[in-house]
Amino acid sequence: MSKKQSSSSPRPACKLAIIGGGSRYWARDLMKDLAVKAGFDGEISLYDLNHEAARKNVEISKRIFGRPEAVSNFKVRAMKTLAGCLKGADFVVISIEPGPTELRYADLEIPRAHGVVQPVGDSTGPGGWLRGLRAIPVFEDFARAIMANCPKAWVINYTNPMTLCTRALYAAEPEIKAFGCCHEVFGTQHRLRGVAQDAFGMEDIRLPEVEVNINGVNHFTWVTEAHCRGVDLFPALRERISQPDFFADRTRDARKRVRNKRYFGSHCLVSLDLFRRFGALGAAGDRHLAEFVPWYARDEKTLHRWGVVCTPYSYRLESRGKKDVSVDTYAQAAINPSGEEGVEQIEALLGLRHLDTNVNLPNRGQSPELPWDAVVETNAAFRRDRVTPLLAHPLPSSAHSLVSRVVDVQEALLSAALARDLDAAREALFLDPLITLSTDRCAAMADAMLDHLKIELRALGYT
Amino acid sequence: MSKKQSSSSPRPACKLAIIGGGSRYWARDLMKDLAVKAGFDGEISLYDLNHEAARKNVEISKRIFGRPEAVSNFKVRAMKTLAGCLKGADFVVISIEPGPTELRYADLEIPRAHGVVQPVGDSTGPGGWLRGLRAIPVFEDFARAIMANCPKAWVINYTNPMTLCTRALYAAEPEIKAFGCCHEVFGTQHRLRGVAQDAFGMEDIRLPEVEVNINGVNHFTWVTEAHCRGVDLFPALRERISQPDFFADRTRDARKRVRNKRYFGSHCLVSLDLFRRFGALGAAGDRHLAEFVPWYARDEKTLHRWGVVCTPYSYRLESRGKKDVSVDTYAQAAINPSGEEGVEQIEALLGLRHLDTNVNLPNRGQSPELPWDAVVETNAAFRRDRVTPLLAHPLPSSAHSLVSRVVDVQEALLSAALARDLDAAREALFLDPLITLSTDRCAAMADAMLDHLKIELRALGYT
Amino acid sequence: MSKKQSSSSPRPACKLAIIGGGSRYWARDLMKDLAVKAGFDGEISLYDLNHEAARKNVEISKRIFGRPEAVSNFKVRAMKTLAGCLKGADFVVISIEPGPTELRYADLEIPRAHGVVQPVGDSTGPGGWLRGLRAIPVFEDFARAIMANCPKAWVINYTNPMTLCTRALYAAEPEIKAFGCCHEVFGTQHRLRGVAQDAFGMEDIRLPEVEVNINGVNHFTWVTEAHCRGVDLFPALRERISQPDFFADRTRDARKRVRNKRYFGSHCLVSLDLFRRFGALGAAGDRHLAEFVPWYARDEKTLHRWGVVCTPYSYRLESRGKKDVSVDTYAQAAINPSGEEGVEQIEALLGLRHLDTNVNLPNRGQSPELPWDAVVETNAAFRRDRVTPLLAHPLPSSAHSLVSRVVDVQEALLSAALARDLDAAREALFLDPLITLSTDRCAAMADAMLDHLKIELRALGYT
Amino acid sequence: MSKKQSSSSPRPACKLAIIGGGSRYWARDLMKDLAVKAGFDGEISLYDLNHEAARKNVEISKRIFGRPEAVSNFKVRAMKTLAGCLKGADFVVISIEPGPTELRYADLEIPRAHGVVQPVGDSTGPGGWLRGLRAIPVFEDFARAIMANCPKAWVINYTNPMTLCTRALYAAEPEIKAFGCCHEVFGTQHRLRGVAQDAFGMEDIRLPEVEVNINGVNHFTWVTEAHCRGVDLFPALRERISQPDFFADRTRDARKRVRNKRYFGSHCLVSLDLFRRFGALGAAGDRHLAEFVPWYARDEKTLHRWGVVCTPYSYRLESRGKKDVSVDTYAQAAINPSGEEGVEQIEALLGLRHLDTNVNLPNRGQSPELPWDAVVETNAAFRRDRVTPLLAHPLPSSAHSLVSRVVDVQEALLSAALARDLDAAREALFLDPLITLSTDRCAAMADAMLDHLKIELRALGYT
Repeated sequence: MSKKQSSSSPRPACKLAIIGGGSRYWARDLMKDLAVKAGFDGEISLYDLNHEAARKNVEISKRIFGRPEAVSNFKVRAMKTLAGCLKGADFVVISIEPGPTELRYADLEIPRAHGVVQPVGDSTGPGGWLRGLRAIPVFEDFARAIMANCPKAWVINYTNPMTLCTRALYAAEPEIKAFGCCHEVFGTQHRLRGVAQDAFGMEDIRLPEVEVNINGVNHFTWVTEAHCRGVDLFPALRERISQPDFFADRTRDARKRVRNKRYFGSHCLVSLDLFRRFGALGAAGDRHLAEFVPWYARDEKTLHRWGVVCTPYSYRLESRGKKDVSVDTYAQAAINPSGEEGVEQIEALLGLRHLDTNVNLPNRGQSPELPWDAVVETNAAFRRDRVTPLLAHPLPSSAHSLVSRVVDVQEALLSAALARDLDAAREALFLDPLITLSTDRCAAMADAMLDHLKIELRALGYT
Repeated sequence: MSKKQSSSSPRPACKLAIIGGGSRYWARDLMKDLAVKAGFDGEISLYDLNHEAARKNVEISKRIFGRPEAVSNFKVRAMKTLAGCLKGADFVVISIEPGPTELRYADLEIPRAHGVVQPVGDSTGPGGWLRGLRAIPVFEDFARAIMANCPKAWVINYTNPMTLCTRALYAAEPEIKAFGCCHEVFGTQHRLRGVAQDAFGMEDIRLPEVEVNINGVNHFTWVTEAHCRGVDLFPALRERISQPDFFADRTRDARKRVRNKRYFGSHCLVSLDLFRRFGALGAAGDRHLAEFVPWYARDEKTLHRWGVVCTPYSYRLESRGKKDVSVDTYAQAAINPSGEEGVEQIEALLGLRHLDTNVNLPNRGQSPELPWDAVVETNAAFRRDRVTPLLAHPLPSSAHSLVSRVVDVQEALLSAALARDLDAAREALFLDPLITLSTDRCAAMADAMLDHLKIELRALGYT
Repeated sequence: MSKKQSSSSPRPACKLAIIGGGSRYWARDLMKDLAVKAGFDGEISLYDLNHEAARKNVEISKRIFGRPEAVSNFKVRAMKTLAGCLKGADFVVISIEPGPTELRYADLEIPRAHGVVQPVGDSTGPGGWLRGLRAIPVFEDFARAIMANCPKAWVINYTNPMTLCTRALYAAEPEIKAFGCCHEVFGTQHRLRGVAQDAFGMEDIRLPEVEVNINGVNHFTWVTEAHCRGVDLFPALRERISQPDFFADRTRDARKRVRNKRYFGSHCLVSLDLFRRFGALGAAGDRHLAEFVPWYARDEKTLHRWGVVCTPYSYRLESRGKKDVSVDTYAQAAINPSGEEGVEQIEALLGLRHLDTNVNLPNRGQSPELPWDAVVETNAAFRRDRVTPLLAHPLPSSAHSLVSRVVDVQEALLSAALARDLDAAREALFLDPLITLSTDRCAAMADAMLDHLKIELRALGYT
Repeated sequence: MSKKQSSSSPRPACKLAIIGGGSRYWARDLMKDLAVKAGFDGEISLYDLNHEAARKNVEISKRIFGRPEAVSNFKVRAMKTLAGCLKGADFVVISIEPGPTELRYADLEIPRAHGVVQPVGDSTGPGGWLRGLRAIPVFEDFARAIMANCPKAWVINYTNPMTLCTRALYAAEPEIKAFGCCHEVFGTQHRLRGVAQDAFGMEDIRLPEVEVNINGVNHFTWVTEAHCRGVDLFPALRERISQPDFFADRTRDARKRVRNKRYFGSHCLVSLDLFRRFGALGAAGDRHLAEFVPWYARDEKTLHRWGVVCTPYSYRLESRGKKDVSVDTYAQAAINPSGEEGVEQIEALLGLRHLDTNVNLPNRGQSPELPWDAVVETNAAFRRDRVTPLLAHPLPSSAHSLVSRVVDVQEALLSAALARDLDAAREALFLDPLITLSTDRCAAMADAMLDHLKIELRALGYT
């Protein structure tokens, strides 16, 4: 019940469990969003391998929910066990890093030494492959713990590799009520909103007014149709990219990005080159999109030509090493919503509103051309205690072929990881679109990567 | 909002074309609904083989839109040609009777003479079969006329056999934007609302709050899940039907219905017997449901046991023969909404609201177990210029098998009709679940039916 | 080649295990065929619940293999345990009766009392349903015993319900190498040979020269194309059945069959009526075919019209009660081959010959329109240690629809039996094409049948 | 009837039409095989754009069929029109070069200049792509001419790109009776025969005794199981390749091949590396296999490492320019069979023998995981007037994924070519596994290739 408001109809209450509840950014952002937006109250239970970090976030939560602009009321606790955290939860939110940042050496540096260029390296390519091998057993455990402690809870996953983590939850527990969320599509909607503003002079467009049909797999999702207020935005977009020099070489910008350690920027040229070539718009950041096909990241020079750069392992280490801010920081500044949609999704599942948005779910036919059970990203209707996919419009056939091969790699990797079979995992790696190495060189790379993490993998049950 | 009000944001305007615009009930109900509910204005163009009837409806429209409770403004005209009616339409509504009522002699009386019991005889069984043979060529013509005159219009079909008529529109013109509407599911929602009220004491339930997952084909649709305000209604329904005597013999009621010529009533026992046997609720009236399986209408005695009776051919003739009311009748009484959803659908397609409801559309994966392209009934999201099916939850496997065989019959009949091939049509008839006649007797019945309409069928191109 | 001959290339040897090895007809016929035809030697191990019967067959085997016309050499033993029988087998042959003949009362008499007409009642309909419920657990046990004792053996099943028994073997042990054999298709080839002789004057036609494409499920299999020596036989067959009175009422013949207790005869009119109506030839005896659709066995009068009669329960009892012949009978008369193909199949699997014939196997695509894993009957190539299905030509769409619904019933019954779930089994029964009873009457019949065998079913694990 | 033999049963006679009948090698080899092997007689009709070449082959035919070792009798004629050649044919054999050798400049040299390495360049990759664009319209014409002149003839295609040419015949005329033949699988059987000899000491193995399950598409076909005389050959093959240095760097051999212009040799290391990595054996020459994945032909250095070299355009020109031999050459030397199977196939289709072999046919389910209608290579049973595919054992999932993407490219290219749509063709090219160029560079290459042949493509109807 809101402290500010004395309404006759009581506000609903629920319990949230957050796995990865000690995180510096993500868990705090969710609490901020709950504070300033939630139409419900309740309790939050934080679980983290780093229990101290979770306890610090409990302290921070007091500052956040104590802010004058807070409209909701949540009691926050840090729990020492996963089971304790999950017990009685209505919603479970998972946002973890699979292993300490140092493990990413194997994801990023070893492939680099073998000539594989990975702008991100967490969803696909050798980096996503190794990260998937680490994450899948962990998510199997999460699934089992959830079904043991809160089998009716909705599970919201934010962890990458999104597709494989969500897939592993269902592989371990087919009755689990889980979905994966990612904000990359929102970025695409932002860009399309710009088209609506510039080309048609529309004003005050709310993001959901940019209606997009979504089809594909996370980080390799596509917009096949986009409308705003009844207007088809694709002709205007086609017009825009047909201008001379639109696709000019961006190597100079890329180099500046490297110099300035601004690794995340782009000109969206990859997204738009896919649009130009295949008739559907890549609906994720260029850093992600470039990893799912062999053409853009074939070598670093080519990647730079598109204005995209790799986020280096060194940066991952550095940004992790930064000193955390103090608890009181959170008491001092006004809270702004994060732009994520978690709170709205929970509200819809509580029956407080309708929400139609994109989501990652096992394919039960919503993307009819893709394999059954593969986790796909499409639109869905969030209603009280239900998430029903909307039937996705089909991908253009070439885009479909590109997505299919990515699904093949993911399914092969999933099977290998479920069976803890590293030979099968090696076989899956060859199929990855980023792999154009000679097979013996690819095998050597895989051996080096697996060897680097052999203790961790053995601990997860791989043989 | 009303026409009297001068708002700064102008109301949208559009043009509706009504095929079957001379009808006594249906066209007038739509105009009434437009008058009292529509958030838009425009013009209506009526087309009917009986041009006089259409002209009378123009007169009536003046009374309807002249009523004080009218909030919208429509200019209504009767057109002498289909092309003239369609030209420039934004929406086309089709509600026709395929041929004069006398043709129904062959649909109803000849099968009866051969021992086939048909409560309705317009959607399936020998009656639906022959009616489909008549309707399909007509709907092919409609589709071509629409694509020639108003290719971007949304086409709303209300004609039976719903599945085959809608299917024929797409068979003739794959790019047509058509869907079929039927209110039978609303009746099921009404009944489920009763469960919510009685078992849980809920009050003031609006019909859309009874959330149902719909899957199947028109008039043989099923509810596989039903919730109201977050409460699962199926356990209460199971409780209700488990009471002693719930399924008691209703022959006495059936006889009374026959005596009193109250052919349309039922106790919904067929719907609930399906629920009891197969775990999903038949989501149409018992008269319809009973025709899609061999068990209830195996003979008239069995049909009566369930409280269901046949609507006789004689009644069809009589009710057609009744004198029409005068034009001024419509000026005298306050207008009530009809309960149909056509106006809301148009509003949603105009971008004036969101609407999630059930609809008949070609299967593009929304019902993944049923054949591609077959017209299926599922939920869909109506948005501005789009109707996107929601992915239907699967039918229980037995119900799925029952629906599959109905789809097989429909697809076989469609192919036969498109090819104007009466031998293929005969072959399709054997597959109908109502046919348990010996094959020679069924063949004789088919011959008699086709022979009775041989002039009409020849005119439609059958050989 | 014979045992008397001392060739330099030794004859191959193998071990056969026969489950149901005490049978009066079937096991003895196989031994006779082995004696006069087999190009290999070895040992035979007989297992039967009635161990005495198996021992008697051992004695008989000595007479059979001692006949002067015997060309092979087999050592035959009766084993007291299934495991002992199977140990080391290269081939396992299964031909059992699921339970004593008295159990067939429930299969045959109870449905009859409820108005269901079953000419055979062992493959489908209520009789096949109950028999399937009994057989499936037994075949699960067989499969497990085979994989435990002789996992590389080929398993040849002759037991009805053929489809469900073979299906159960694979359901229990997916790696089993089993197939089902039935001679009904040979009967169809015989009849087609007659067409080739009569219409084209061909002489000395060997049965394999009548080349037929086979598709469907056992006892409801279809010939979609038939050629002999390059000549298409279907036009001649069409000509034959188009003669006046070809399909005349055969009630008089049927009555005579009943009077004379000649229950197995027919005029093949059902097979040919299916051919006339649907363009493919029913490839089993009329008694079987009539049970898979609702038209021929709708009542006994209709069945007789086609010249087909029911084999009564009383006859099953009587023929079982007949005194067995003496052991020495088998020493006295010359042995003739039985017309079965078991020996040829074994020879082909041993690499001694090529054999292309029809067979029942899980569908791995050989019948692309039918569900994956369902046991279907198609042609297959028997080669050394391999049985590879030939791709079946598709069924005409109407025949396909009829077969589909049969597969649905079988798959539903299989699931129910595997789960030992009698409620699910009841649900499956409603789907059977022979069921046109009112649902309450069908439910009562099912209850009576299950009640009659409740001890046996409980012993099999049903609850 | 054979001149040498005076049998009472007359030899069958038939008419063969050969499109590409002026070819120096292929047409002559077929005539030689007919001369020394055929169990039938008849006439041969040669058609070639180069009519003189066809007429020369008529002269040569007289020498061939006049040889003392000739056992058959064929009358050979050269026809000036395709229709004249086809009229009345029982068999049509197609073996053409799509366009003069000079056109191959665009297939081979332009991709090379853009950094794409193509060992062969006629089946896939940019070379296969452009060749396909040229061939598909031509094969559409052939199909139409065949259906107009000899609709019941069997059509045997030997032209590359095999898959696309055969596919185009069916796309233009779905009722055509065509299949594609390729001897690459025989080469794999030869190699496996060596394994059987070396590892098991088997002797006198006839090639068909090496029984292989075939699945995939032409030139990217796989052996998933191989047996000889009941012995599984894969363990021995695995043993062989596990020896140290088996996969040693073969750059030195490759360089020698280049120096000596022996472009066609290889160590089969690519085939065996696929076997090692994916568990199924690549069943074509390494030069072909290397083109269907991105790993071996990523650059010329990598290709040489596997001992494979590119056949250069210059060699194609040279070998074409060689002077033809004289007519009388064919009268002087004894005729040896070519190793091709065309004569045996024709004999089987005439009903003279049974033949089980590999063949390229539209997928009607024989390769259940691959798309319907795609032309796939599997085993098939050749019988009188029928070619029935055997159901293929499934590919390992990784190999399946690799084949799938190849099928996607082929289907996309086919659609583009059928529509004469060069934009769609450009889109298809990006999907090719050999394309790892940046998209702008790939687009530039495509433009250069299409531009080089713009007159030819325009003549074929491309716009």
